[in-house]
Amino acid sequence: MEVTVIVIGDELLIGQVIDTNSGEIARHIAPHGWTVRQVFTVADNADDIRRAIDRAFLTTSVVLTTGGLGPTKDDITKSTLRDIFGGEMRLDETTLQNVRDVMSRRGLKLNTLTEDQAIVPTSCRVIQNRVGTAPIMWFESAGKVLVAMPGVPFETREMFQSAVFPQLLERFPSDMAVEHRTLIVTGITESALAMRLESWENALPGWAHLAYLPRPGLIRLRIDGKSDDRDSLHSEMDALQAQLEDLCSDILLTTADTPLPELLLNELRSHSLTVATAESCTGGNIAATIVSIPGSSDSMLGGIVAYSNEVKQRLLGVDTETLSTNGAVSIPVVEQMAVGAQTATGADVTLATSGIAGPGGAVEGKPVGTVCIACACHGVVRSNTFHFPGNRARVIDRSTMTALIMAVQLIRECCQH
Amino acid sequence: MEVTVIVIGDELLIGQVIDTNSGEIARHIAPHGWTVRQVFTVADNADDIRRAIDRAFLTTSVVLTTGGLGPTKDDITKSTLRDIFGGEMRLDETTLQNVRDVMSRRGLKLNTLTEDQAIVPTSCRVIQNRVGTAPIMWFESAGKVLVAMPGVPFETREMFQSAVFPQLLERFPSDMAVEHRTLIVTGITESALAMRLESWENALPGWAHLAYLPRPGLIRLRIDGKSDDRDSLHSEMDALQAQLEDLCSDILLTTADTPLPELLLNELRSHSLTVATAESCTGGNIAATIVSIPGSSDSMLGGIVAYSNEVKQRLLGVDTETLSTNGAVSIPVVEQMAVGAQTATGADVTLATSGIAGPGGAVEGKPVGTVCIACACHGVVRSNTFHFPGNRARVIDRSTMTALIMAVQLIRECCQH
Repeated sequence: MEVTVIVIGDELLIGQVIDTNSGEIARHIAPHGWTVRQVFTVADNADDIRRAIDRAFLTTSVVLTTGGLGPTKDDITKSTLRDIFGGEMRLDETTLQNVRDVMSRRGLKLNTLTEDQAIVPTSCRVIQNRVGTAPIMWFESAGKVLVAMPGVPFETREMFQSAVFPQLLERFPSDMAVEHRTLIVTGITESALAMRLESWENALPGWAHLAYLPRPGLIRLRIDGKSDDRDSLHSEMDALQAQLEDLCSDILLTTADTPLPELLLNELRSHSLTVATAESCTGGNIAATIVSIPGSSDSMLGGIVAYSNEVKQRLLGVDTETLSTNGAVSIPVVEQMAVGAQTATGADVTLATSGIAGPGGAVEGKPVGTVCIACACHGVVRSNTFHFPGNRARVIDRSTMTALIMAVQLIRECCQH
Repeated sequence: MEVTVIVIGDELLIGQVIDTNSGEIARHIAPHGWTVRQVFTVADNADDIRRAIDRAFLTTSVVLTTGGLGPTKDDITKSTLRDIFGGEMRLDETTLQNVRDVMSRRGLKLNTLTEDQAIVPTSCRVIQNRVGTAPIMWFESAGKVLVAMPGVPFETREMFQSAVFPQLLERFPSDMAVEHRTLIVTGITESALAMRLESWENALPGWAHLAYLPRPGLIRLRIDGKSDDRDSLHSEMDALQAQLEDLCSDILLTTADTPLPELLLNELRSHSLTVATAESCTGGNIAATIVSIPGSSDSMLGGIVAYSNEVKQRLLGVDTETLSTNGAVSIPVVEQMAVGAQTATGADVTLATSGIAGPGGAVEGKPVGTVCIACACHGVVRSNTFHFPGNRARVIDRSTMTALIMAVQLIRECCQH
């Protein structure tokens, strides 16, 4: 089943907010064989919303809208939907009670504008929004369904997964089986990988497709397979995966479809190791990336953001002479940082970075993008100097991912015996 | 001038990658009075790309595409554009030389697939991509322009700002003046703010528009004005801004359109103060948010990610009894963390967090979302306990923004004399 997502809101078109809802929806429906055919992002403008809906229904039977349901004057999605699907606006008592409950759980007072959230077209069925004040509205006409959801990412995710999508699955049942297999490879460019896999990819059966998903420091390869025979699909996907693993054996990081920080946490857990960071140019981003994973407290002790040289000395014991001889962005300093973080926190594994994220800070022989990364695991220290392209955010992101990959590889190396 | 952005790529529709290009484009063109009318996100599928382009040209004369220009088999944008705009495919020598230069600057070897990037339709004019291998293609037909750009955000931003948009401005010159004014307010809900501003907003002249842009912990208010009389627009915008400042005086955080971490850095710089963090539940996110701003090394010394209780004690000097009596998520502990970070790093201002980001970790009386935040500025310590809604990422984000706001307010309070 294909759906169109229509993302509504001026704030998206002026670039103040980034749409993450369509991606959330896509990821959630994929395992069920549902796909997002297209995403239209339009302004809080009745004509544009109406036109987008008309176009969406030309190619897909299900349309999901997000946003434009706020209490303020600029949000006109609800009245536009009433114009399209007909009916009258009326205050829905059940919805009003839900809005009251949500507000009281947040310790907020109900005002008139928020009360108006409970006014909905009679042509829709309301799905009560347990985590926000904007009601979710299900419209249906001539076998086609439109569900209007709020724009707040957290509300959309919560309600789409728990209520909207289960109801869509019931409304449009399917017998098609879908499987995905993911391999994550590292240390190769996308074009070199494509050349390596070219003949295998060309020989893929029609029901299978290979997607290249490059990420900073790695490439995610995804085999998608679709069939009405669930059992044979599973074994044929196994075979394709085994072939691809063979072709990538020297560059394979994992066959689990797992974000890098989670992959590191899994390695740590399986060897009962703790981890800490010592970050200069990444400024806490490695630690924050690890902590973003629920349950990271099992293995994560913490870390030191040693942005100034003085903090590198005070808290990580980097010595003055090493700093003055080699400069802060150097292998000797970053190795001392990694070892210093072990001493300071007592962690088994540490990740350390020191680099020039830019735009300023470049020195002779060390252009912007120069980053030294060290990982320590018990007595073993590995380090390397990288030259990452791009702006500050990109250098920080790339450094973070590279450090996580290095740590995974070092743990495997140290713990394989 | 209105443009349509067409974002091309399977990876976007399966939710593996989030589109940031359209937002970058929107933010860059806004000050020139250009707006993004709509964004269409479509798969690497010739029919869908063609249909999106046809529809885009119905309402806008300029279409910008991003993505679908990679060297792999699944990228078919280039051949689709040749089919639409005509011409033949040919190897362009200047483009090939540019691809060679880009690869050699990256220390990478040129392979056949990458060489093929230099094959372009004769119907386009190439804008050389200085920072990547995918050539940028300018097509023009019947007064309408389509520019195809790569999908890599860093390449798109760099080339759009330096080459594509300047050429679009030359091609479509305009006399319309545009101004924006931003006010950031905090400590009020969107609906309460909308009620407060209702009569003022209803009385706004037709050429002016107020947008509400809620963010974690704050609301950004933007007045947009458009006129062909540049001078009178400027003074009338001044008047509107002054009125809005009056209406919001008690909740106003700033009238600068500045991200929060930059606002904090400005406050720190103007009082010659240094800053450090002591983070438990935010796990380094506050430090990383500050460090994300270029030039933050002026004021940012670093910090301690004290995720485990042992690190809180070892590096921040939180005492055992305070921890065992109150628990880690408590005002006494977070205040000791803030003061401990001052001692450990020597910073003037510190921000400390300890909370339950979830999904696990809730205890009696402290549900998920409970976060204690403390800020210290010289001898003054301010702290508060918050209950943030949402999942782990949202709690961390909200805690980070709240800590930054608290630090700005504390510095203003401490340094006003």
